[in-house]
Amino acid sequence: MRLNQIYASMNELGIKSLLVSDPKAISYAIDKMFHVSERFIGLLLQEENAVLFLNQLFPYENNEIEIVRFHDIEDPIALVSDRIDGDELFVDRNLTSGFLLRLMKRQPDLRIREGSFAIDRIRAKKSLEEQEKMRVASRLNDQVMGEVKRRLKLGVRETEIADFIRQRFDEIADGVSFDPIVAFGPATADPHAEATDRVLEAGMPIIIDMGCKKDNYCSDMTRSFCASKPWNQEVYELVREANLAGISAVKPGVKLSEIDAASRKIIEDAGYGEFFIHRLGHGIGQEVHEPFDVSGVSEIIAFEGMCFSIEPGIYLPGIGGVRIEDLVLVTSEGCEVLNAYPKELEIVG
Amino acid sequence: MRLNQIYASMNELGIKSLLVSDPKAISYAIDKMFHVSERFIGLLLQEENAVLFLNQLFPYENNEIEIVRFHDIEDPIALVSDRIDGDELFVDRNLTSGFLLRLMKRQPDLRIREGSFAIDRIRAKKSLEEQEKMRVASRLNDQVMGEVKRRLKLGVRETEIADFIRQRFDEIADGVSFDPIVAFGPATADPHAEATDRVLEAGMPIIIDMGCKKDNYCSDMTRSFCASKPWNQEVYELVREANLAGISAVKPGVKLSEIDAASRKIIEDAGYGEFFIHRLGHGIGQEVHEPFDVSGVSEIIAFEGMCFSIEPGIYLPGIGGVRIEDLVLVTSEGCEVLNAYPKELEIVG
Repeated sequence: MRLNQIYASMNELGIKSLLVSDPKAISYAIDKMFHVSERFIGLLLQEENAVLFLNQLFPYENNEIEIVRFHDIEDPIALVSDRIDGDELFVDRNLTSGFLLRLMKRQPDLRIREGSFAIDRIRAKKSLEEQEKMRVASRLNDQVMGEVKRRLKLGVRETEIADFIRQRFDEIADGVSFDPIVAFGPATADPHAEATDRVLEAGMPIIIDMGCKKDNYCSDMTRSFCASKPWNQEVYELVREANLAGISAVKPGVKLSEIDAASRKIIEDAGYGEFFIHRLGHGIGQEVHEPFDVSGVSEIIAFEGMCFSIEPGIYLPGIGGVRIEDLVLVTSEGCEVLNAYPKELEIVG
Repeated sequence: MRLNQIYASMNELGIKSLLVSDPKAISYAIDKMFHVSERFIGLLLQEENAVLFLNQLFPYENNEIEIVRFHDIEDPIALVSDRIDGDELFVDRNLTSGFLLRLMKRQPDLRIREGSFAIDRIRAKKSLEEQEKMRVASRLNDQVMGEVKRRLKLGVRETEIADFIRQRFDEIADGVSFDPIVAFGPATADPHAEATDRVLEAGMPIIIDMGCKKDNYCSDMTRSFCASKPWNQEVYELVREANLAGISAVKPGVKLSEIDAASRKIIEDAGYGEFFIHRLGHGIGQEVHEPFDVSGVSEIIAFEGMCFSIEPGIYLPGIGGVRIEDLVLVTSEGCEVLNAYPKELEIVG
């Protein structure tokens, strides 16, 4: 249970009432994951006191918090509404409008604000134990990337490689942290390409973006290869430099937008800025995408214990792309790179 | 593309502006699924005109609708806000608060209401083509239930059966429609039990709740068995009668709450009402849980072409439970039951 940390965070931010509805944030707070699908779940935190609103369908006991049960035919929002103190409620960003609009209808004068930051900032600061789990998950990712590389032979299909990744992470970890991206040829120009039965041919660029879950923590890494001969060495080297520049910029006290800028500058200065079409990175931990974004608009300041990705890319529409992604852990003076798999251009096939 | 149907529905309901943000609802409207994760996507429908707000990360072209592109560092809500006509906006229930609150901040005078019904009612009415796909998916489910039954031997583990189900649906369908529930013994008292390494022993009740996806449509069926000898025949027969009573109550013009009541009455009259702890059923189609709920509070009136589950259950805490679930398709005079797998008590092992 991390409730005391969350209460301290709320106090610092002047948040008196916080309604947490995202099952993943609730799991982070009370160490229990509920798979409620479209049903409501809510954890109301007020005056260092926690009330969990839980459908009676889901067996759960916890003596340290109050549990309010409801049936499928009751409106849980009415129950939550009755328990809100004061005239201001903070909600997490993932509360859905269906529930929020019902609450607003019940309490038209309640001031509602987004309060995810109260939990996000704690979640983003990994404890020493969490840091070790992040290292382990990334080490497994490095290992499987080596195995994948050896299977990148001419004639192999994207789906065969994707299946192999899923199978290996089922064997040595607790499965994949997201469905692997395996792209050959022009498909590498799509940052979220889905694996197809496309066959690897000489001259194709290759992107492998994958990760596993281990002990509830995620890894995430991307490497780009070329089949038989170099594809576009200039683009590859630019992306590699941008990756290294991003990593070099990471240290406590730096704005995340500055890290994005340091990496992006390499690509922009070479005239490829318009082809780097996404943020530089994202937070990671129990979820593969967690707060905070590493993007040009982030005002968040890096602090020790944060873990996020650095993943610049250049995508030439219809032709191909390169992305190189590592996870970094912010240390007292800089960062530790969690991935050890080499970043020099490798020719496979 | 089902935009014309949605425009007609909006006109009927007097909805002038509808913002659809749920990727599954967008997929239903324009036949394209976007996996945007935490990123924003929105389809703004106004005056029989559609504007799709899409991160430039996602490749997509469609000449029939306007596409507004944005970058990771732009605020898509500002773009949406600029395009809203009038002073009232309907949003779907799954729009997250993070986006909704930002929109409300930008336009404090905009009246915001829940408008999912405009799409839900169309989605709930399956076309003849969709009906046939639902039949096919349920037929595959019947087939695998038979295969599962033959594997329910004393000594088998829940996880072995769950793995078998996943594997079979990978082979003969497009995978499972949800992670199968395989529960032995007291675990059957938890309607959402997760498979463990628990071993099947003589005398245990068994619940198998599973479904597959085939051609983008889902199946979902539950059967309860007993190992070696009957477990609790009274409870089994009650649940079976409740299932049949629910099915008998289905016809156009009946409120969904009346169908719930017809089934629940059997269980309540026998004194087990408090152990039937969930709604009777849920809509199903491209998603395994879709609108509308078949529950005691549903004011929705059944119409031809609707497809939903009828799944009464009795759960005795710490002891065990029984659930029997079929999918039904509302016809002009009653309903067609999509599952043919028998419902008489079967002793396995």
